[in-house]
Amino acid sequence: MLQNIRVVLVCTSHPGNIGGAARAMKNMGLSRLVLVNPADFPSPEASARASGADDVLASAQVVASLEEALVGCTLVVGTSARSRSLPWPMLDPRECGSESVARAAQGEEVALVFGREHAGLTNEELQRCHYHVHIPSNPDFSSLNLAAAVQVLSYEVRTAWLAREPQAVKTDKDEVVEELATMDEMERFYGHLESTLVQIGFLDPAKPKHLMPRLRRLFGRSAVNRSEMSILRGILTETQKAARGDAHKRKDQ
Amino acid sequence: MLQNIRVVLVCTSHPGNIGGAARAMKNMGLSRLVLVNPADFPSPEASARASGADDVLASAQVVASLEEALVGCTLVVGTSARSRSLPWPMLDPRECGSESVARAAQGEEVALVFGREHAGLTNEELQRCHYHVHIPSNPDFSSLNLAAAVQVLSYEVRTAWLAREPQAVKTDKDEVVEELATMDEMERFYGHLESTLVQIGFLDPAKPKHLMPRLRRLFGRSAVNRSEMSILRGILTETQKAARGDAHKRKDQ
Repeated sequence: MLQNIRVVLVCTSHPGNIGGAARAMKNMGLSRLVLVNPADFPSPEASARASGADDVLASAQVVASLEEALVGCTLVVGTSARSRSLPWPMLDPRECGSESVARAAQGEEVALVFGREHAGLTNEELQRCHYHVHIPSNPDFSSLNLAAAVQVLSYEVRTAWLAREPQAVKTDKDEVVEELATMDEMERFYGHLESTLVQIGFLDPAKPKHLMPRLRRLFGRSAVNRSEMSILRGILTETQKAARGDAHKRKDQ
Repeated sequence: MLQNIRVVLVCTSHPGNIGGAARAMKNMGLSRLVLVNPADFPSPEASARASGADDVLASAQVVASLEEALVGCTLVVGTSARSRSLPWPMLDPRECGSESVARAAQGEEVALVFGREHAGLTNEELQRCHYHVHIPSNPDFSSLNLAAAVQVLSYEVRTAWLAREPQAVKTDKDEVVEELATMDEMERFYGHLESTLVQIGFLDPAKPKHLMPRLRRLFGRSAVNRSEMSILRGILTETQKAARGDAHKRKDQ
């Protein structure tokens, strides 16, 4: 079940941190590592710090974008410093552990996303996450080492996993669990939504303000399932047809 | 109060781990580091890994025996692999955090003791501890990096400390609680949504199926706030304008 939880490291500068993260993961029983544009990987320094977690490094997936790293995921949690201009649903590390484990136990794919050593995740990357998680820290010295942050969240995943009693798993047959839309389906929806909003004149690409992030946050919160997704896509398609008619009419005038 | 909690590292081989431990401590608000016979300290490697926690290194106390390191303490917790020949009172990391904080709050001096990178603490050293603490880990790969172990226990100390001081936990001024849309505002939205869907030809009033209930469930789940509500209403209004244009055009044909 823990194999449904992947650790995603975005644009890591120091290979030693990749090794340290791999070791922390394996210590806690996690094995799936995805690296988005690492500066230096594979590297002897990563292997040295992994000190025995070479299998995690060897099977690590290297990808070119966060989007690729999140394919198939239905729960994405991004690490973040607390204050951001746009408030977002927050988890503390303990809640992050229990939510990740609960969702992984349902067969969902979960991603824990960690940003750059100095700059963290960008606002755009954070807006791809359902939740942000903040590791409580000394306000005067708040930036954890990357591998240390992976250690804390992985530890909370393991603790939640150990605490989970098998009989507590819901097996209510009446409760049909509808399959959630994956992150890639959500991204296609957001793309479709954005172009539709431009088309109907609600979104000005020159002055986008916080419109798309706000809509991402809204839909991100509600765990959209697949049948709902097809309704939403259908609405957009019909809206576009209507808007095209409008555009033709304007041309005709 | 956290200054009553000291971290004791016994016979550390690698100075980088001392630096990593200092950083982890300072991140979590701990400052008192005691080193029992470190192999190489002070060291540039320790300072590099401390990356800003130089003050913790500078004030670290170097001593020749565990006994000296524990002077004044009334609670000593030693890190240990789980199985030991002599059963001992055990704490899990969470209990270790809350017990350490509870005792430190009473003005007691507390020590968290970490052993050698490969061999841990000796039986004799473990027997100087009131409790042993075991960080739950993968039985096939159980040995955490020293700084990672310090990170986990320091994190649990901070978490327990924050839980004791509720006012210190949530004072994020940036996290504005946005007012939710009321039930009547939601109803007006659903009415607007329904008429818009009819207008764009997505909803057939003669065969509504379960479309509106599904959309109510979707938006109901996400606790829509007022600013999101005005975005949604704005989108519907623009969609209707576009659709009206379309309708006019059709009439024109």
